[in-house]
Parts: sequence; structure tokens; C-alpha cells
Amino acid sequence: MGTRRGTNLPRMGDFNQAVILESIRRSADGVSRIELAEATGLSAQTVTNITRRLLGDGLVAEAGRAINGPGKPRVILRLVADSRFSIGVHLDPAVITLVLLDLSGEVVQQRVVRTNENDPRRLVEVIAQAVEGIVADAGVDRERLAGIGVAVPGPLDADRGTVIDPPKLHGWHRVPLRAVLSERTGLPVVLEKDTSAAAAGELWKGTGPADDTFVFLYLGTGIGAALVMRGDVITGASGNFGEIGHIVVDPDGALCGCGLRGCVDVVCTPQAIVEEAEREGVLLDDREGNDVEAVDARFTELCDRTRAGDRQAGQLLRRAAVHLSVLISALANLLDVDRIVLGGPLWSRLEPICLRELPALIDARNVTRAVRPMAVDGTIVGDDVGAVGAACMVLDAVLTPRASDLFLAE
Amino acid sequence: MGTRRGTNLPRMGDFNQAVILESIRRSADGVSRIELAEATGLSAQTVTNITRRLLGDGLVAEAGRAINGPGKPRVILRLVADSRFSIGVHLDPAVITLVLLDLSGEVVQQRVVRTNENDPRRLVEVIAQAVEGIVADAGVDRERLAGIGVAVPGPLDADRGTVIDPPKLHGWHRVPLRAVLSERTGLPVVLEKDTSAAAAGELWKGTGPADDTFVFLYLGTGIGAALVMRGDVITGASGNFGEIGHIVVDPDGALCGCGLRGCVDVVCTPQAIVEEAEREGVLLDDREGNDVEAVDARFTELCDRTRAGDRQAGQLLRRAAVHLSVLISALANLLDVDRIVLGGPLWSRLEPICLRELPALIDARNVTRAVRPMAVDGTIVGDDVGAVGAACMVLDAVLTPRASDLFLAE
Repeated sequence: MGTRRGTNLPRMGDFNQAVILESIRRSADGVSRIELAEATGLSAQTVTNITRRLLGDGLVAEAGRAINGPGKPRVILRLVADSRFSIGVHLDPAVITLVLLDLSGEVVQQRVVRTNENDPRRLVEVIAQAVEGIVADAGVDRERLAGIGVAVPGPLDADRGTVIDPPKLHGWHRVPLRAVLSERTGLPVVLEKDTSAAAAGELWKGTGPADDTFVFLYLGTGIGAALVMRGDVITGASGNFGEIGHIVVDPDGALCGCGLRGCVDVVCTPQAIVEEAEREGVLLDDREGNDVEAVDARFTELCDRTRAGDRQAGQLLRRAAVHLSVLISALANLLDVDRIVLGGPLWSRLEPICLRELPALIDARNVTRAVRPMAVDGTIVGDDVGAVGAACMVLDAVLTPRASDLFLAE
Repeated sequence: MGTRRGTNLPRMGDFNQAVILESIRRSADGVSRIELAEATGLSAQTVTNITRRLLGDGLVAEAGRAINGPGKPRVILRLVADSRFSIGVHLDPAVITLVLLDLSGEVVQQRVVRTNENDPRRLVEVIAQAVEGIVADAGVDRERLAGIGVAVPGPLDADRGTVIDPPKLHGWHRVPLRAVLSERTGLPVVLEKDTSAAAAGELWKGTGPADDTFVFLYLGTGIGAALVMRGDVITGASGNFGEIGHIVVDPDGALCGCGLRGCVDVVCTPQAIVEEAEREGVLLDDREGNDVEAVDARFTELCDRTRAGDRQAGQLLRRAAVHLSVLISALANLLDVDRIVLGGPLWSRLEPICLRELPALIDARNVTRAVRPMAVDGTIVGDDVGAVGAACMVLDAVLTPRASDLFLAE
């Protein structure tokens, strides 16, 4: 029987340091020690001690003085953005995206690698070389690298750091990606599901409150969900939170391999939408490849035609929006969140129709309408939210106060 | 923009005290100070200081000495069960259940009140009198009462402590139940959704690890879900976690008022199952009332006949189990839990067929099967899990360490 662990002074010190650092990071124009004490509830003495340590470590710098009413001008503290960096890698079936973020969360270097490499060891080598590449291009000191975050399609085994039979990565079976990549690069590696990484990125770069609560719906080759509850990404018991492929969104929809009809996997994915367009004659049924790129090009065609006013294409995408609204409502009503954030590689193309159609559809299905409306937002991170989120997770481990970090180690 | 709050020494002291008290509570045969230090990671000195305080408050007592190898015999500490009590109230459409729990979580007094009272003020008076009644019957000192936990059907407004238009409580609209009941009884009142209260009870009385992760599926007049993630009940942003009435479990099912077909609300509730039995001629179509009791009696008849070997009734309930398995799989795959716990007033009747049918059905739909099997358990609390859970929530506030309690108040 597990028992909860207690806490002690060193843990408390680390936690308060993370609270202060987060508070400085989130202040756009810098912040004074007095403001930090007010915002965090910590004593002036504690704030002074912690900021001295942060200044010593070079994570924070003094940046002028602010005159604010009578009394001594206050010294303003700011984050030193180039004091630490992290690397984010998004492993997608078609493309590997890498980003290098500085401590403020800005992307300072980006690289896209297209490969047909399915062999896990060789793919790790491709990733490792790309990592070396962006670090060299950016001219960043290796000692300033906090680590590598890798976002992968699920399922994964978070405890072991292994990727298990991801449906779209052929030849992968229980690949110990975390250990192999860490050994090859000599850097700490964090492995996370792509959807949860995206939510971490949204939370980290977001302008919402520190205790923001939202569902992140990731629209890519597959559709997945992630949950941020009061400022924490809920990753589930095994790191596999958010498998929603077999939630029924259209009782009249296509038969799914699972035995149901109209599941997310056979109705909402770009492949499903493109196939339906071909069946209904909205798109010509002459597509040669069935690979991710060929489907993606067709999906772009549908979106472009809708924007240009094509009635048939518009109807089809509006139906897709209805299906998404059923899914989103099921998630929002179950998870009791304040808002929905949509993102992922498909988002920029679906944004116009989704932001027009979804709010009213979701409001009609909101069972807690009497408590609060359900906001529908697009991601503020962009198409690379998976890679950016993976890098944010690494910064997060350095920067963000986690209540669980207070507990004594077993 | 919200900022996370820091922590300080007094907060740390309270937290560690809760960790120690929980550890003593969860030890069946008592525990020594040395074992407490090992289990919690706290220093011997800290454990000694905290247990001195707990002894002084009468929450814990010394209970003999254990000889364990060479060296001085160790003093065993045990919880003093009758040092604190709490009251749990489950407000159900048909019946109000009240329980009085001692600090060990044992039910020392129980009372059921049947009322057709729909007027909120008069219903609060009925509850208040029943509370006075069980406290008097048990002969418990008022100073030892920690408070009242009330489990209500959602939706509710947790911040305001109000019940909002619960679908089955006619005449209720934004009733400030927490404030009114607290004023009337002079006791602190905690208001929680019935499903989340049930999960709290399961967690509190359970034998699982302190960081247990499970979905609790509440089977009553309505069907609801609750989530326990690493030992914390996740109640959602507004206290309304677990609204699952419009998740589609049978694409061929009846049309729902929401526009979909085969939603939980029109397929899985006892009313839906009884109506289907009547439509198919499994039950006579001569039911006079459509109230909760009449439906409940019919549902019992179906379960009894299934147990007696009636083929038609058995087929109908097996189909209900299939629908439940679709729901449970959707929840388990989304929420990434280690196990499913079923409970609520219907559970004892459905247990035989569910425990026979569900595990294989759920395993077949488990998308993280490669990581771990999905366990299916019945509640260990029993039919009164709503009321017991509501009382546990009050004890919980006294006893259970919450990381969030470490944060400084705003």
C-alpha cells in the first residue's frame, strides 16, 4: 500500500524558487521584488534570498528601476532568455519537426526532416544528427541545453520511456526511445504523447491564468485530446491520456473496425473526410497514393475550395464541424473544463469554418451552460505545437512549480 | 493573470501532519514512529513533534508496544476512531440517505428519509432535522462533529455552493444549499456532486494505494462518472466533472432529445432498460407509475429473473452490459486509468452479470492493453456510497494531505 510522502525545507526552497521564476517569466515587462512577494504570498526576506540565487545562476537579471509613487525606485527583475535552451522533437509519421527554444519559450531555431526511415535505430540517428544540427546552427553553448523533449504518437509506456506499436509508425515495437536518444546525445530526454506535449506548449506559452483548465483537441493525421486541469497537464496513469478514436460522433456514420459506427477514427480524421468527399463526388476519385502526404494535399484542396465559396466542399466541412462539435461536447461535459483549445497541423486550414460553426453547436450541448459558457479558442502556438510543446515540457521541468515536486523521494 | 502561490513553514507543518495522520489511519494494526518516518520520508524528529501534537489533540493514542527484532520495543500509535465524526447526506430524487461516520470511516449511524417534498427550504428543514436525529441517536458530542458533506445530483455551482436545476429535482433552481444548511445546523457544509462524492468514499475506504487512479462509474437513477487520479478526486473546473449522458454507446439505439441516437441517457439508465423490456415484451407493458420507485421495482424484477435463468431477461441485461462496456471503454481510453470501479444503488443487482461480462468486453477495447490490463472492480462501499462518500469528504478535509493545501492563501 503506497503512502503519501511528506515534505521538508530543501523541497520547500526549490518549490518557492520555481514559483518566483515562473512569476518573473510570466511578467511581460519585468517585476519588482515587492510585486513578487505580493503575487506569491512569500515573505520579502524569502523573495530576496531566492532572487539572489536566481541572479547568481544567471537565470534572472536586474533590468533598471521603476518609479512607482513615492519611496525608493524598485529594481525590476527580468528573465535572461538565453540562459537556458531546450530542444523539442515531434515525431510524426510523415515528418520530424525540431525546434530550439530559449528560456522565454521563443523558437530560436527550427528544422524539418522528412524521412521514410522506419527502422527505429536509424531513425534515432536521424533525430540525433538533426539535434546536433540545430544546436550548431544556433551557436548555443552545450552547457545551456536543459534537454530534449520528444513528442510521439501513443501508446507509450511513460515509466519505461518506450514507444509501443504506434499505429502509424511501422516496424516500431516497444522502442526504448528515451534511453537510446539520451545515450546517443548525452542529454536528458523527456518522452511524452504528442497531444499532451501540445497542451503543455499551449499552457506554457498561453496568456491564460496559471491555473487554466482546458481540453486541447489535437487535429493531425490522428485526432487526440489532452487535458490541462488547474495549470497541470493531466497525462493519465500511464502517460496515455486522450485516446478518443472510438468515441461515436455520428450514429449514421461508417462502420468502424471496433464494431461501432461513426467513431472519431472513421469520421473525423483527414483521411476519413477526404474519402467521404471522394465517395460523394466532391473530390475526383482518382487519388493515386493513400499515404499521409497524398491525403493531406486533398484535404487542403477541400479547405481551399470551401474558402473560395464551393458549396459542396463547404457542406462537407460543415458536416465535419458538426462531428467535431459532438466530440468536443462529450469531452467538455465529461471533463468539466472552462474552454476548448483546438490545434495541431490541420488547425490553420480548419480554423475559419470551425470558429464560425463550433461555438453555437457546442453551446447547445453544454450541460453546465447555467454555470458558465464554453469558450472555443484556436491554439496560440501554431502548427508546430507538438514540437514546441515537447521543448516546453523540458523548460517546464526546470521552471514550473509542481506541487508534486514538494514530496520527498521514495 | 493568476500566479501560483508559494508555501511556507506553517503550511508545511500542516501538510506533514496530514501525511502522518493518513499514514496512521491506513495502518490496520497501528504503526510505530520509526515506521512512520520510513513510510513518509520525514525525519524522526519531525515525526516525534507531529505525533506529540496528534496525541495532544486526542486524534491518535498509544496502543501498546511491539517487539520487532532486537532493541527497544516500539510504541504503536493508532487512530482514535471516536475523536471526530462527520455526517454524509445523499440527496436523491426518491430518498435522502444520511450516515454518521467516525474518524476511521466506519458508519456508526444510518437513516433513510423518504419525502415528496420538493420545496427547497422545506427540504432543507427535513435534512436538518434528520441530521439532529442521527447525532442524538448516536449520542455524539457536538464538538466532535467535523461537518456535513452533501452529495447532490449535478449540475451544481461549486464556488457558490448552489444546486442548479438538477434534472430530477423539480422546483429547484440555484438553491444555495450549502449556505442555508450551514446556517440552519451551525456546522460547516461541503457540497459535492454525488458521483464525485462516491469516488471520494471509494478512495477513502479503499485498500488501494494512496495514489490510486480509477474511474468510478455511478449507476443510479442517472449514470455518472468520477475520476480519481493519483489519489486525488478530479472534480473539474466547476465541480461538475463526469456528465456522460450524451456519449453514444449504441449507434442503433433510441433517438435522444439531443439529436443523437443511443446516448447513455436513453440506453443505459434503469428507466431506459425497463422501457426496452416492456417494448420487447420481456416485461408486461402494464406499469402504472413512471416514478423512480415503479421503475426500480421493474428493474429488480428483470435482475431477479436473470439470476433465476430467464433467457429473455438475461439477453436484455447482457445487451445492457455491452452498452456499459462501450461507455466504460470510452472513459478508460480517454482518461488512461488503471482500473474501473462500479457502484451506486443499482450495482448490487447488476454485479453478477457485469462482473461476468464486462472484463472481456473492456479488454477487447483497451487501446493501452500493451501497457497494462484494465481491472474491473465492484465498489467496496456498498449502495450508500453517495452518503458515505459525502461524509468521507468532510473527514478528508480534516485528515488527508493535499498538495494544494501547501499553497499560501490569496
